[in-house]
Amino acid sequence: MKQTTDDLAVFGGPPLFRQPRPIGQLSAPGVDRFLEVFRESYDARYLTNGGPVVRRLESQLAAIHETRQCIAVANAGLGIMMLMQLFAQGRNGEVIMPAFSYRGLPHFAQWAGQQPRFCDVDETNHGLDPQAVEACIGADTTSILAVANFNSAGRLEELCAVAARHEIPIFIDSVYAAGATHGGRMMGGFANAEVYSLHATKLLNGFEGGYITTDDDYLAEQLRWQRNFCLPGLQTPRLKDVQYLLGINAKLNEMHAAMALAALEELDAIIERNRARFQVYIEGLESLPSLSLLPYDDGERPNFQMAVVRVDDGWPLSRDQTVRVLQAEGATISAYYSPPLHLSEHCPAGMNVHSLPVSEALGQRYVQLPVGDLVSLADAADVCALLSFISNNGADIATRLKRENAA
Amino acid sequence: MKQTTDDLAVFGGPPLFRQPRPIGQLSAPGVDRFLEVFRESYDARYLTNGGPVVRRLESQLAAIHETRQCIAVANAGLGIMMLMQLFAQGRNGEVIMPAFSYRGLPHFAQWAGQQPRFCDVDETNHGLDPQAVEACIGADTTSILAVANFNSAGRLEELCAVAARHEIPIFIDSVYAAGATHGGRMMGGFANAEVYSLHATKLLNGFEGGYITTDDDYLAEQLRWQRNFCLPGLQTPRLKDVQYLLGINAKLNEMHAAMALAALEELDAIIERNRARFQVYIEGLESLPSLSLLPYDDGERPNFQMAVVRVDDGWPLSRDQTVRVLQAEGATISAYYSPPLHLSEHCPAGMNVHSLPVSEALGQRYVQLPVGDLVSLADAADVCALLSFISNNGADIATRLKRENAA
Repeated sequence: MKQTTDDLAVFGGPPLFRQPRPIGQLSAPGVDRFLEVFRESYDARYLTNGGPVVRRLESQLAAIHETRQCIAVANAGLGIMMLMQLFAQGRNGEVIMPAFSYRGLPHFAQWAGQQPRFCDVDETNHGLDPQAVEACIGADTTSILAVANFNSAGRLEELCAVAARHEIPIFIDSVYAAGATHGGRMMGGFANAEVYSLHATKLLNGFEGGYITTDDDYLAEQLRWQRNFCLPGLQTPRLKDVQYLLGINAKLNEMHAAMALAALEELDAIIERNRARFQVYIEGLESLPSLSLLPYDDGERPNFQMAVVRVDDGWPLSRDQTVRVLQAEGATISAYYSPPLHLSEHCPAGMNVHSLPVSEALGQRYVQLPVGDLVSLADAADVCALLSFISNNGADIATRLKRENAA
Repeated sequence: MKQTTDDLAVFGGPPLFRQPRPIGQLSAPGVDRFLEVFRESYDARYLTNGGPVVRRLESQLAAIHETRQCIAVANAGLGIMMLMQLFAQGRNGEVIMPAFSYRGLPHFAQWAGQQPRFCDVDETNHGLDPQAVEACIGADTTSILAVANFNSAGRLEELCAVAARHEIPIFIDSVYAAGATHGGRMMGGFANAEVYSLHATKLLNGFEGGYITTDDDYLAEQLRWQRNFCLPGLQTPRLKDVQYLLGINAKLNEMHAAMALAALEELDAIIERNRARFQVYIEGLESLPSLSLLPYDDGERPNFQMAVVRVDDGWPLSRDQTVRVLQAEGATISAYYSPPLHLSEHCPAGMNVHSLPVSEALGQRYVQLPVGDLVSLADAADVCALLSFISNNGADIATRLKRENAA
């Protein structure tokens, strides 16, 4: 561990991690387990287009999420685009979404013919603020995209009540809520639909991929049609009512499904490893002043997937300086949801941007710490020791960083 | 082989093929070869987001297509959507496309904020008719999507000249032209860009996937940015000029790339097998009256991937009856590009549909025959024998089909 500030990689010392430590789950069952699941469809050359492995995956995921339906898609982003397009029913309107969220969301709305309508969030759980949502609803609103954050799904019941009162579809980006509960109930069946990811960096690694859960059979039928180019055509009478639906290639193929099935077998073990890692962070950071690890909701079953710290005013470095020092040490971390979407380069050009004070304040406060299966318990302890070193030598580090910037 | 019309599966006889024979390439290198290429990135858990295997694939494909750039994407459809969106530069306009083509295209245009403008095709090569294209060009035209058909890329030089004269971007759906030449030159570097598929049913099986070829470095830079959510942001000064670009998740991941690389090693062998199969069709069908196998362009190096027959007036069954009889025998074939797009359910609701006589006539004439690596030479000979049986017993078959329909 670092003895003097000269030892910090940002000042030319050797980095703590030669192999970068990421912020993604990156768990992987053995190749053999994956192949076992996959070989059958490989040999049959049934490789894509809703094959037997995809159907098995959909069935297992629906069981885990306790929903009637699960629709596998090529990735979560396409799933979100599909729902935005479907719910708009052929209108060019607005999708209400939190300003404190993932940078890709505004562009997804535009692909679906919609403008994003950025809405402020709840200070505590960082999800959409129901009162702010209600103020954003107008004649142009075509849907509401709530986001379930990693440690809390937010005020879902209130949000759904607002949506129901205004008869507007609401769906949830639940990418970080996989395997977690809300109000003691498994995430999956809340709102009109929820979207999950099978990207390698997410809880369930299908290499890449995603899925949508819903209890609405008719919605599921439309999504299955939509993900396959709206082929083979308007075969069922009810789909004639949804001529506005646009087809896309968002099929998940058999090998992704095989990998996700292999990962599913390890789900409990993955969450247990995450819990143990998170416990190291809890213990290693609890004594540091002005740095708080965001807790998981009491009484819920979380996935312990992410570790995010809030950098308070007393911390000797700015949030961005802290990110810079950690990155230099080989932690491929980043500022968390910064800047907020309405101030980001993903905000549509020419949009009239209103101030969203909570999102703006939150956007300056958080750092993601290394997590996932490429981060050992010892690595996590090393990150804690590094943060402790920063805490103890903060004034020196800040001065040197300032001097370097001036030079 | 069938002795009497009772033996036809459509009348209750045993089907010719118990295992269906498809119309896709469906070649697959051994699992071991695929794994060898894949294992490295699997063990490193570098599974997606422009990894080393994807970069190797891009480099090899660029060499084969003799282009400066190759940009791998999650599938060809997303590649087409990306180019339509990029070329429109933030305008909501029209994309000119052939009416005699793939059903998914009109919806792709709408995802990209464009209306499809259906254009008639050349009677001989079935590609866009340059004069018809010129008549379609207007103030709203944002791009031209030409389609290279399986046996001819069409009048590309004239089309590019029309596009250049009107300063409108033109790109090519070259999904069926993989590995083929046009005017003796490898397809890949024509027009502003070309789009290819790595779907299992296409020449190069990457399970699923696609890629874009171009000689335009700046276009390639934008596409790489676009396929990854437009992340990490506007880092290069020139990209600030393209704020209209919408990011999407269209990344190809390492395992698809590994499979495509394994398939690439077999490319010549795949084409040779296709050639041998096509030769069986040539010899087996040449004596049948009123049924003509579409030839490949003289003097070009084709991929011999597809076998399509034209059903002429003297043939005893209608085109749709012929399809029905073949399907009953276990050939999972279909009518070729039927109906044309402007008469299809993928035509946007409320669109003013003009008659496009060439596309409408072509849409009633063609049948795809079983091809690809799940179809042996003996299978192809059996299909020829079946067609010969239909030719010899056509009047009886037609009468029975008619009687059944009336019953």
